[in-house]
Amino acid sequence: MNAFSPPTLPPTPDYDAWPIEADIRSVDHDARVLTLSWSDGRKSRYHSIWLRENAADESTVNPATRERILDLSSLPAWPEIVAAEIDESGALCVTFAPEHRHLRFHPGWLRAHDYDNAGDPEAPLVPVRRWHGGPDASPDSLDASGLLDTEPASEAEEAILAPALESVLGKGLVRLRGLPTEPGSLEAIARRIGPLRPTNFGLLFDVKAKPNPDSNAYTSIALPPHTDLPTREYHPGLQMLHCLENSVEGGQAVMLDGFAVAEALRQRDPDAFATLTRVHWCYANTAKTSDYVWYSPMIRLDAHGELLEVRIADFLRGPLQAPFEEVEATYDALMTLQAMLREPGFAIRFTYAPGDLVIFDNRRLLHARDAFEGTSGHRWLQGCYMERDEIRSRYRMVQRARRRRWIAASQQV
Amino acid sequence: MNAFSPPTLPPTPDYDAWPIEADIRSVDHDARVLTLSWSDGRKSRYHSIWLRENAADESTVNPATRERILDLSSLPAWPEIVAAEIDESGALCVTFAPEHRHLRFHPGWLRAHDYDNAGDPEAPLVPVRRWHGGPDASPDSLDASGLLDTEPASEAEEAILAPALESVLGKGLVRLRGLPTEPGSLEAIARRIGPLRPTNFGLLFDVKAKPNPDSNAYTSIALPPHTDLPTREYHPGLQMLHCLENSVEGGQAVMLDGFAVAEALRQRDPDAFATLTRVHWCYANTAKTSDYVWYSPMIRLDAHGELLEVRIADFLRGPLQAPFEEVEATYDALMTLQAMLREPGFAIRFTYAPGDLVIFDNRRLLHARDAFEGTSGHRWLQGCYMERDEIRSRYRMVQRARRRRWIAASQQV
Repeated sequence: MNAFSPPTLPPTPDYDAWPIEADIRSVDHDARVLTLSWSDGRKSRYHSIWLRENAADESTVNPATRERILDLSSLPAWPEIVAAEIDESGALCVTFAPEHRHLRFHPGWLRAHDYDNAGDPEAPLVPVRRWHGGPDASPDSLDASGLLDTEPASEAEEAILAPALESVLGKGLVRLRGLPTEPGSLEAIARRIGPLRPTNFGLLFDVKAKPNPDSNAYTSIALPPHTDLPTREYHPGLQMLHCLENSVEGGQAVMLDGFAVAEALRQRDPDAFATLTRVHWCYANTAKTSDYVWYSPMIRLDAHGELLEVRIADFLRGPLQAPFEEVEATYDALMTLQAMLREPGFAIRFTYAPGDLVIFDNRRLLHARDAFEGTSGHRWLQGCYMERDEIRSRYRMVQRARRRRWIAASQQV
Repeated sequence: MNAFSPPTLPPTPDYDAWPIEADIRSVDHDARVLTLSWSDGRKSRYHSIWLRENAADESTVNPATRERILDLSSLPAWPEIVAAEIDESGALCVTFAPEHRHLRFHPGWLRAHDYDNAGDPEAPLVPVRRWHGGPDASPDSLDASGLLDTEPASEAEEAILAPALESVLGKGLVRLRGLPTEPGSLEAIARRIGPLRPTNFGLLFDVKAKPNPDSNAYTSIALPPHTDLPTREYHPGLQMLHCLENSVEGGQAVMLDGFAVAEALRQRDPDAFATLTRVHWCYANTAKTSDYVWYSPMIRLDAHGELLEVRIADFLRGPLQAPFEEVEATYDALMTLQAMLREPGFAIRFTYAPGDLVIFDNRRLLHARDAFEGTSGHRWLQGCYMERDEIRSRYRMVQRARRRRWIAASQQV
């Protein structure tokens, strides 16, 4: 750097974009804690060890991957702060002992990771809104006809994908319309979000009445409300169903918010709810060439008693292996839930049109279908699975692009 | 059925094979509970509702898929037993009210699902054995040179795969040797167990020093002990690393049993252990084109305090977002663990030979590698991920084949 040019902002330890919403006005420190005062009056404390391991220099982070290379336990002692100041660029500059290392920190990054004033870092990216169905309800529906013509990761793609991702994150469901009806096009569409998760049913699976079906889904019978693959340790987080043809009588699609049903059960019959959150059912697909088995409660709660996931599919339940004394109460609770799942007030009903693609959270929503008359026409959906990580990663990339545009716009001013 | 031919055993509600280890001697019942007395003296009670929903007839199960079609809550009343007897084939025959339906049950299947006398239905298929390493330790190693020449699902394939599956299920690790070294052959090898799990790094990923690496794995630097993709809600259950070339100086592989390390930590420093099971770390891969973030404790326990999984990777930890008061103690616990991970007593060290394939449990084992000298030769591993469900499904198919052979042999006698 030329001695006469002002310093530029240091890199951050990641590839994200961090706008500077407030400037650092002053810094105070002792050996183990540093306190920043921001231009909007906020004060933020950071520990010396936290700052040391989150530096962005080449002793800490591999500059190519921006992954950490520092092993904290290899330092000769606990990192301590011997000096700290704000430089002309607005960056925080810290000198650490015992390394005698000078490290600089980006103020936007520091502010975004202010754990001293943070809310819940694990809060969902989009607030979760439970919903009820009923005769007038329909899924959030978006015209996605141009999606495959957009440049990947472009603003045009983002204009179509961002509201879809928000619906899936918030309501667990979206319907995209106007997509191609070529068999296999689902793969290219899904990859706009992320990698697919193949299973023993393939990368894409064909939902139509087939000879020698290996799933009730591949017949024309009605399917009760269910989540897919509850037989897996981690049943898929997302499911996509893409309609290629639909000219049959019947076969209407039904979607329910499993979280809304579970909360209603908690209100109406707390004992049944408690039973279904406690007793492990056996989920089994003891098929011809594979044999998947998993044990889980039907409704899983997190440590705070909030709904985490539902795992419901009558046709994939194996024989209950509960203590003898629990069995009757467990079936009682099951039948209470089964009756609720038939209430029309929970269900969104709709008919697939060719080119429709429904994306839904398979650990939250239940889907069902009416029986259809296989000889009255054709009904062909293609489906695939994906992990919820992908939709969150894609949405974070949308947020990052928005931040980059915000930074670019604020620098032009 | 011809009136003069004795009845044959009824089907079971699944595609599995159920040997008859004991005969039913007598049956007793009231309306809601039926009791079987077996030839070896055991008594087993079954509830009427459990029997009704686990029948194998066409009102209960789709005969093509063997998936349930009965919706219990659609029955007019709780199923009750009005009559029960053992027929000439040895099957249990029950008449249910209010349907007035006669249903038959396979005695081998009933015995195998005797929940009145069951142990833990969720017990692992193979007992979990924790292990320590040290200078003389090596992974269970098996000659798998003929694997791709065997018929899928044949006894010859089983002879190679079954002990490998047992090592992975019990110890979390196996090394197969003598496999092909053609690039891409890992896919065919892995498919002998089940479908692969692709990620943003591809279906197969190449572990070698690359220009523009997007992971520290794709450089020649040392990697500390870690699990892969802790940044995912469900980090992959299994990892496979297949050596195609290895002529470099260095690059030795290191494997540790994360469960053994965690148990040792629980003994030596219960406070550090408790901290690492409680405080959520941020795992983040904030990369150029994707942005995966997940929050989790480093050591996860089940409801009984037993080890469930470990999630450790210094280079994929994002900035800790814990309450201010927890931060120093949390780093203290981390550094205690980091120091233990360097103890040679936990580690198995080995050098990959071309044709070696290591399969390991990525939610239990940690793997690491020494730095290598990229100019001294070539080091090329291909890797892939798979869910643990696949190894369990494949092992249940092995057990099923063994039961079928047992049944066939006992019928020849």
